[in-house]
Amino acid sequence: MDSITLLGLCAAVLTTSAFLPQMVKTWRSKSAKDVSYLMLVTFMSGLFLWLVYGIYLKSLPIILANSVSFCFNFIILSLKIKYR
Amino acid sequence: MDSITLLGLCAAVLTTSAFLPQMVKTWRSKSAKDVSYLMLVTFMSGLFLWLVYGIYLKSLPIILANSVSFCFNFIILSLKIKYR
Repeated sequence: MDSITLLGLCAAVLTTSAFLPQMVKTWRSKSAKDVSYLMLVTFMSGLFLWLVYGIYLKSLPIILANSVSFCFNFIILSLKIKYR
Repeated sequence: MDSITLLGLCAAVLTTSAFLPQMVKTWRSKSAKDVSYLMLVTFMSGLFLWLVYGIYLKSLPIILANSVSFCFNFIILSLKIKYR
């Protein structure tokens, strides 16, 4: 694997895994009032389009990173609705 | 411009602009205690790597989307530190 691909994969792992601590924080504190609904919904719409884009390009890193991020953000949104 | 590129651009606009409502919400409510520090720092590290990746690939959409997202997240992080 060349160094540019490795760089892209590291970037994908970081921007995807970033939502894990937010998910854990929301689940523990049972509060997400400071997290914007509009951010979550807009971001998830964008992730969905990236996913379709990745499927068209048959790019596994784009498909994986965006589907995992979508799931994490869906869980954060569900927790926010649950704990409002 | 072909429809796949347009799809990718729409995805980039959505995942980038998603942070605007979070920025406005944090600025108005003067509170971001429910937003995870670890999420912001991990996400910004990932955005920085995507930016370097985009510079290597000479891809203007990747460079633009990630530098704008980085700025928005930097402002959210600064507001969180200011209002803690």
